[in-house]
Amino acid sequence: MMIKFRKLPASACKTLWKMGREDPRRVIHGLKVAAALTIVSFLYLLEPLFEGFGKNAMLAFMTVVVVLEFTAGATLCKGFNRGLGTLCASSLAFFIEFVAEKTGQKCRAAFVGASVFVIGFMATYLRFVPYIKKNCDYGVLIFLLTFILITLSSYRVENVLNIVRERLYTIGIGCSICLLMSLLILPNWSGEDLHSSTVCKLEQLARSIEACVSDYFKDKDIGVKEEEAETSRNLLYRGYREVLDSKSSDETLAHFASWEPRFSRNCHKYPWHLYVKLGGVLRRFGYVAVALHGCLESEIQTPRSIRYIFQDPCTQVATEVTKALTELATSLKNRRRFCPDMLSDHLHKALQDLDTAIKSQPRLFLGSKSANNMLVNWKNDKETSPRVTLPSVKSDISAILSELRHKKIAKRSKDSEERKQLRPTPSKLAIKSLEFSEALPFASFASLLVEMVARLDLVIEQVEELGNAANFKEFQGKDDVV
Amino acid sequence: MMIKFRKLPASACKTLWKMGREDPRRVIHGLKVAAALTIVSFLYLLEPLFEGFGKNAMLAFMTVVVVLEFTAGATLCKGFNRGLGTLCASSLAFFIEFVAEKTGQKCRAAFVGASVFVIGFMATYLRFVPYIKKNCDYGVLIFLLTFILITLSSYRVENVLNIVRERLYTIGIGCSICLLMSLLILPNWSGEDLHSSTVCKLEQLARSIEACVSDYFKDKDIGVKEEEAETSRNLLYRGYREVLDSKSSDETLAHFASWEPRFSRNCHKYPWHLYVKLGGVLRRFGYVAVALHGCLESEIQTPRSIRYIFQDPCTQVATEVTKALTELATSLKNRRRFCPDMLSDHLHKALQDLDTAIKSQPRLFLGSKSANNMLVNWKNDKETSPRVTLPSVKSDISAILSELRHKKIAKRSKDSEERKQLRPTPSKLAIKSLEFSEALPFASFASLLVEMVARLDLVIEQVEELGNAANFKEFQGKDDVV
Repeated sequence: MMIKFRKLPASACKTLWKMGREDPRRVIHGLKVAAALTIVSFLYLLEPLFEGFGKNAMLAFMTVVVVLEFTAGATLCKGFNRGLGTLCASSLAFFIEFVAEKTGQKCRAAFVGASVFVIGFMATYLRFVPYIKKNCDYGVLIFLLTFILITLSSYRVENVLNIVRERLYTIGIGCSICLLMSLLILPNWSGEDLHSSTVCKLEQLARSIEACVSDYFKDKDIGVKEEEAETSRNLLYRGYREVLDSKSSDETLAHFASWEPRFSRNCHKYPWHLYVKLGGVLRRFGYVAVALHGCLESEIQTPRSIRYIFQDPCTQVATEVTKALTELATSLKNRRRFCPDMLSDHLHKALQDLDTAIKSQPRLFLGSKSANNMLVNWKNDKETSPRVTLPSVKSDISAILSELRHKKIAKRSKDSEERKQLRPTPSKLAIKSLEFSEALPFASFASLLVEMVARLDLVIEQVEELGNAANFKEFQGKDDVV
Repeated sequence: MMIKFRKLPASACKTLWKMGREDPRRVIHGLKVAAALTIVSFLYLLEPLFEGFGKNAMLAFMTVVVVLEFTAGATLCKGFNRGLGTLCASSLAFFIEFVAEKTGQKCRAAFVGASVFVIGFMATYLRFVPYIKKNCDYGVLIFLLTFILITLSSYRVENVLNIVRERLYTIGIGCSICLLMSLLILPNWSGEDLHSSTVCKLEQLARSIEACVSDYFKDKDIGVKEEEAETSRNLLYRGYREVLDSKSSDETLAHFASWEPRFSRNCHKYPWHLYVKLGGVLRRFGYVAVALHGCLESEIQTPRSIRYIFQDPCTQVATEVTKALTELATSLKNRRRFCPDMLSDHLHKALQDLDTAIKSQPRLFLGSKSANNMLVNWKNDKETSPRVTLPSVKSDISAILSELRHKKIAKRSKDSEERKQLRPTPSKLAIKSLEFSEALPFASFASLLVEMVARLDLVIEQVEELGNAANFKEFQGKDDVV
């Protein structure tokens, strides 16, 4: 405990250092915020400037701290929200004051209180509307705050106009410093983040699928350490997770990107929503990839000997899918259109090979022992190397599985252990005890591969639509492929 | 355009009304915020109270608007963050002032500016640390703001202690009103939201799987309207989406729930993290469900005649899975332990039936025309009803598909149309032109069903772990099942 406590500062420093190295923009953003705050503090500290603005400098600080976000789009969006919220609230407050002035002082307190209640309720309720929650949650918050401040101030102070004017000035100063920092000095664009994260997702998917298929056909008994397998599995999962959990971050980035003026030069909006759509298509593609991955971890497994027969055609299809995804990523990265001609032939051929291979082994799906024996013979005929034969592989796997289960149970608390003993996990045993056609899982694997190729088309279509809408440059040969 | 504009208020009112009816807690929350604001405004409006606190009432308003969140946990978390941030910032600011006092007035300005820069940078950079971003982002923000305000005030004002004291008082008043409103008056608990959303996810999954399997075996030619199919498909998707996209909302709810004092009465923490874990297991289960659903939309389809053979065992397995999920949902809803004994037998039997059915049709997976013909014969033998035979079904589906494709192409712009004509979508055609073993997709379907049963075990395990950790009551017969 004490040692852990003593090590805390060192590990914290390490984490901070690593974070900065991973993405130096974070350090730059920190410096930018610090610089903006220091500039505003000059308003307060320097004598001549203090006379003019200083008294309201606090509001400028608040604006900088709250509005200056990591990306330019987010800053613009928040600044706009803050400005608009303040303006709307001021006008409404003046209107209310105008009405309230007609009533007496006693009534006026009640009137102000009632208007605070009504506007408070309405603003809070409005924040539940999905559209407002997404686009101007912050604006409504600022609206409510400003409205209350002005309405209440007008009750005690004579000249509210001055308060409001100073307020607007300081918010203006704060916002303009934010915009300056965010747009002109080393800006981070949400749009670029979205673009590169989409490219990254395509690459991750390609890598995961390649790893998954090669894993499926790998001989696990031959010198692969548990740790290595573990890390490769983690890598696979991270690839999927980044794709599958990207929905909200994609939407946020696209929302902020639509605020950024950078890419809409040619008088037409850059199609950020198509990135979100592409993200959706990629997620659906990812579901198939995860299901494919599930074949690796399934309880019933096709014996490796059967898999060997189909290794080449399956790997071929997977390679072609990987190639297509990598090519898509490259074309997107270089902002050029995708040219799928060269891919279609290979993909077609790979599918045909798989088809031929499956047809050439019609008895596989019989699922009887005889088929297995036949396979073992076939395998022994083909390779004379003294590899493990089928039965031993199977018993190996079940041995490992049962061992794992025992470990798991041993770890549990006594209470649950008793319950476990009373009732062994029902369906796992059921699945094991059944002699399901052993090729069934492989059929699923192959079918998912084919399904994946079909989904790939949707991805390609979506990337093409994006390329058209965003006016990507035409493909001009392989030279610009990195 | 004008008509749309005129209709806008009506439709907006409708949306707002619907939102309130869907979840009346939203209206209540709105009223609570409005009441809290009105109470604080009394501090300002009423003469005797104004003398005491009124001048700083603005800070109390700000606290109420920002801290009073929808659920009790979120309010507690934010209130704590605000309080701690203010306290830390005050102490640091006093320390800085103590050091700064030793230096001269000129140096002091530089010293204050430098400390603003350094603290500004550090606080902004710290907000990127994942742990801090998750737990105390708001606290760091408040820390930075308060620190700047106090440090700068101390440069101009003599007695800073007063400012700080008043600040803390008003924040205290704001926070206590928030806590009162949030914890004592019709509280919304994040924990309950998390609990019921988990129950809802289980139910949604059960419904989706049932619909998916019945859809797979449904005869589409017989009087099912396109619209109905569309709505049922949307229903299916919504079920999955709620499960698959739940990660961030689950984590947020669990984080806030861990702040809530309600369920940790027995001196041990309620295991909210296990809900997050269960959510993860459900997501993995959902991937298989989506892949199963993908079989409905796949490009290559097993002829309906083949599916008919396996309809009963498959439906049986799906029914058992649905039953198990519904039972899990019910037990979770009633906070009692899950009793899977009665399920295991049925599930086992259903799996065995499926196994038998698949084994009884070994020639299905041959994929040659002869198998198809055999099937048609078999089917005709079995049912003498004059249903469509295989070839016509197949050509029907391809006709529909090609028609759809034509429509799609017609909708595209000319540019892309030309490109399309040059290069027809590669793999779709490739898939169609291959005579893939037609039973392959069904094998995938069956395999995914079996896989789903295996994953169901993990879900059951997780629910049991949750039940143990949360001390759910023991199962006592069917009587309390709703």
